[in-house]
Amino acid sequence: MASIFTQIVNGELPAHKIVETEDYLAFLDIYPLKPGHTLVITKKEIPEIIDLDDELFVGLWLFGKEVAKAIKKTVKCERISFVVLGFQVPHAHIHLIPLDSETELNFQQERSRASDEELAEMAKKIREALS
Amino acid sequence: MASIFTQIVNGELPAHKIVETEDYLAFLDIYPLKPGHTLVITKKEIPEIIDLDDELFVGLWLFGKEVAKAIKKTVKCERISFVVLGFQVPHAHIHLIPLDSETELNFQQERSRASDEELAEMAKKIREALS
Repeated sequence: MASIFTQIVNGELPAHKIVETEDYLAFLDIYPLKPGHTLVITKKEIPEIIDLDDELFVGLWLFGKEVAKAIKKTVKCERISFVVLGFQVPHAHIHLIPLDSETELNFQQERSRASDEELAEMAKKIREALS
Repeated sequence: MASIFTQIVNGELPAHKIVETEDYLAFLDIYPLKPGHTLVITKKEIPEIIDLDDELFVGLWLFGKEVAKAIKKTVKCERISFVVLGFQVPHAHIHLIPLDSETELNFQQERSRASDEELAEMAKKIREALS
């Protein structure tokens, strides 16, 4: 069965999309560690990021860098953290998370579902910062 | 004053180095979140990873990918996590951390200083897996 990210790419599941190219897509995490928490993915479903060929791998990081800069313009934070995990969805992706301190990076903490209103507003702001 | 990473690059501070190129260096974190926790850095001292020019940025991720594959061959784990934080040392670097679950990624937890014997043995093994 297609991953939930592939279903988002194909429009079979909804998402608060920020930007997409032929190969990549950025959208908001609906369970944000912090507001503005974004996922950037390859449209192609490849389980692990280290299995991407160099061209697709490099393109994903460059795409993520541009989105990270837009998040930094949008959300008050010290730094944008880049995180690769991949345990929940085996489809290559990077978390971009606006942080104010290192200890905020804690995937043990409980995460709440953000409202669609908040997410839509955030996606709009980041999209505007990109252009 | 030069960052502690620049002091490592210049040989003014010791480190358990794994591999280096003209532009990049990989060495073990002496306070590992998990055994095999490695830092890959640019030799040039630039505070934030998103401020690297595209060429240096892309090269750092490709260098990190090769080191991550060697760690995965060396340390029993599900996945190698890539993490960019940068709060403690403002000198562009990526953490490569072997993990078995998402919840292990927790920078709130206390970290112990690994012994130099353990670190030397680990660096040697990862270096061998690289070649």
